[in-house]
Amino acid sequence: MTEVPPFFDSRWVQCPDHVSECRGAERDGFPGGFRAAGIAAGLKASGRTDLAILISDGQESVSAARFTRSGVQAAPVLVCRERCDLHALRAVVVNSGNANASTGTEGFAGAVAMQEHCATALGLEPQQVAVASTGVIGVTLPIEKVLRGIDAAAEQIGPDTAADLAAAIMTTDAFEKRVCLEVKLPSGNVKLSAQAKGAGMIQPAFATMLCFIQTDAQLSAETADLLLGVCVKRSFDRISVDGQLSTNDSAILIASGASGVVVEPQSPDELAFGEALDALLRQLALLIVRDGEGSKRVGRVVVRGAGDEVERVARSIANSPLVKTALHGGDPNWGRITQAVGAAMPGTAPLAVDITIEGVAVCIASTAVNFPVAELAAAVAGSEVEYEVSLPGDGGECELFFSDLSHEYVSINADYRT
Amino acid sequence: MTEVPPFFDSRWVQCPDHVSECRGAERDGFPGGFRAAGIAAGLKASGRTDLAILISDGQESVSAARFTRSGVQAAPVLVCRERCDLHALRAVVVNSGNANASTGTEGFAGAVAMQEHCATALGLEPQQVAVASTGVIGVTLPIEKVLRGIDAAAEQIGPDTAADLAAAIMTTDAFEKRVCLEVKLPSGNVKLSAQAKGAGMIQPAFATMLCFIQTDAQLSAETADLLLGVCVKRSFDRISVDGQLSTNDSAILIASGASGVVVEPQSPDELAFGEALDALLRQLALLIVRDGEGSKRVGRVVVRGAGDEVERVARSIANSPLVKTALHGGDPNWGRITQAVGAAMPGTAPLAVDITIEGVAVCIASTAVNFPVAELAAAVAGSEVEYEVSLPGDGGECELFFSDLSHEYVSINADYRT
Repeated sequence: MTEVPPFFDSRWVQCPDHVSECRGAERDGFPGGFRAAGIAAGLKASGRTDLAILISDGQESVSAARFTRSGVQAAPVLVCRERCDLHALRAVVVNSGNANASTGTEGFAGAVAMQEHCATALGLEPQQVAVASTGVIGVTLPIEKVLRGIDAAAEQIGPDTAADLAAAIMTTDAFEKRVCLEVKLPSGNVKLSAQAKGAGMIQPAFATMLCFIQTDAQLSAETADLLLGVCVKRSFDRISVDGQLSTNDSAILIASGASGVVVEPQSPDELAFGEALDALLRQLALLIVRDGEGSKRVGRVVVRGAGDEVERVARSIANSPLVKTALHGGDPNWGRITQAVGAAMPGTAPLAVDITIEGVAVCIASTAVNFPVAELAAAVAGSEVEYEVSLPGDGGECELFFSDLSHEYVSINADYRT
Repeated sequence: MTEVPPFFDSRWVQCPDHVSECRGAERDGFPGGFRAAGIAAGLKASGRTDLAILISDGQESVSAARFTRSGVQAAPVLVCRERCDLHALRAVVVNSGNANASTGTEGFAGAVAMQEHCATALGLEPQQVAVASTGVIGVTLPIEKVLRGIDAAAEQIGPDTAADLAAAIMTTDAFEKRVCLEVKLPSGNVKLSAQAKGAGMIQPAFATMLCFIQTDAQLSAETADLLLGVCVKRSFDRISVDGQLSTNDSAILIASGASGVVVEPQSPDELAFGEALDALLRQLALLIVRDGEGSKRVGRVVVRGAGDEVERVARSIANSPLVKTALHGGDPNWGRITQAVGAAMPGTAPLAVDITIEGVAVCIASTAVNFPVAELAAAVAGSEVEYEVSLPGDGGECELFFSDLSHEYVSINADYRT
């Protein structure tokens, strides 16, 4: 049996001391109070697992959710926003193989049918069931297959099915992204698990990231919402594979309360739980970037400056095809970074920009400096490359993780025909 | 001798009836009053032509100029803005092989030296001489070579040297971009010529476009500025190879007045001259996109809607790597367009978007419609593909031309090492 490698494997994410990974059989389980099932409903042409149900048995479950900000949103996202009690979700029904996006009123009706059918199967109210989809867009959801799949899944729900849930949401993902953590809070031990998907793109359409998070800690709805909001901003909001925003992005946290460990607002428990959730989501976000289509290297850029402009500049760098191809080529080409900075700050010339790559200063006050070229070339040949950019002013800082741009990215997206 | 193909060769740019191309020897000439020289100063490792001087002999010459909006601007751009009388330029000195960008105070001093040395050689005042550079960034300009090159060029200036001027500004360009036009104005005939460069990127740095425009029409400085401003907005401001903004972009129009044909403001002459300039710059802009690194196809997107958002949406589409790879692959994948639209319009869901590709409706009110797949696939296999996007509302329209994203783009930019 192959040893599963450690989940926390990036120098950019520290596993807090009070957090440990569940190994062995426990790794496939959930925190107390959760059950799930993942089955093949026939939505993926490959016949692989493509539909899952997750349920929290805790009557007092609380939840929080975040969705794509895109102006074009898939039917399941609209159903979640319009027809769910997002602070008191008990279950999620999710499918891959079809995004149910750009499918009009028929698509919306399909997502409603998923929600209602799942609620009936689980003995819940519809507003307690979130819906998510990922896959091809612009194609009508084969609703009969989905509803039969929900029935089949409902019969199989069990406690050790995290692998099935993770498999049911994978599309072009090259590897699964899931973990179950043991978190030692001052008031007692809780578990925290999550399953995510995302690899830059869904044939034949676009990037989608989904993430489902479970804990048996007892949180208030306000605490769940606050912690998810903060941690999503520091993780899934801080990554770019190709600068493309999906119609289907969804992150849903459910707390069953089954551990009986109460996390009070502004308590040491809240701080410790938040640290664990933060590390978890940041590592999952990094895995999505690492699995970016055709990706070989992951970059991290930190931009410091006066305030508002730091995020704009960081996104300009992270989404620049010139910076991404240089990252791919293992080339410490800082001129492309100054270009991306300048493009994001029109009307500010002459602008003093400092740039370091892997800690080596390559440009000071927008002027080239001599640096050890061979050493730096070796440093950027690794799997993670760090860029730091300083603009005039203080007080603002933005961090982004991004993938490189490769031949394989072009192959995956150009050679494929709808 | 090979016949030079027609300059106006796109269905998207109409050559006005009163405009014709100069052929034969006249094609290598300039409008009356202009002379130029292009020589090899040793800045390009290849030993090719890399430095040029252009001069207008008209004492009453007027001019207009537009530059990059980047916050990081090359030394020659800063010199033009700070030390030139941009409405009364008489000459341009330009080099390729070195962008003189991110070169600090030494770079600025080098650009000043170019300007002053050229002014002395031509018997002009420094503020009458514009400076432009394109090529590698972050490398000190070898100023001795440049000054010797200016001396050599000054000795060779002559009237039939448009090819040399065009050659001196080429970097990764696969083909030259120049033309000399005969323009029949109501008040008489004038000539209008231009030389441009741009192909997405300059080793090892980034996109630069330069364009020099000459006419023997007699314009006021205000008219020159107005016409250049309007026409640049409809041409060089409407293209994207890779969404990257250069530090060196410059477009400079000089009118010698040598024809004696006066173009009065708001006259039929101004209208006719403006139509010619507009067609000229639009065709040059298209040639730059067509020469985009690794480019196989050119896309044109027209977005219509209520106003402010149309340009943002058009840029989101034109710069989307998903749309660009679909264009490259000859794939009528409209899902990627809805994704790019949604990403540019956060918070507007559900948003009704209509999309046509090559005139075929593929998505109405954000919902897939049946369309003749094989016919459309054939239509997008050509060298130019047209997309039209309608958002809710009226009154706003934005057009952009963009290149595709190919394996060769990645090769050019990732496999190259600084």
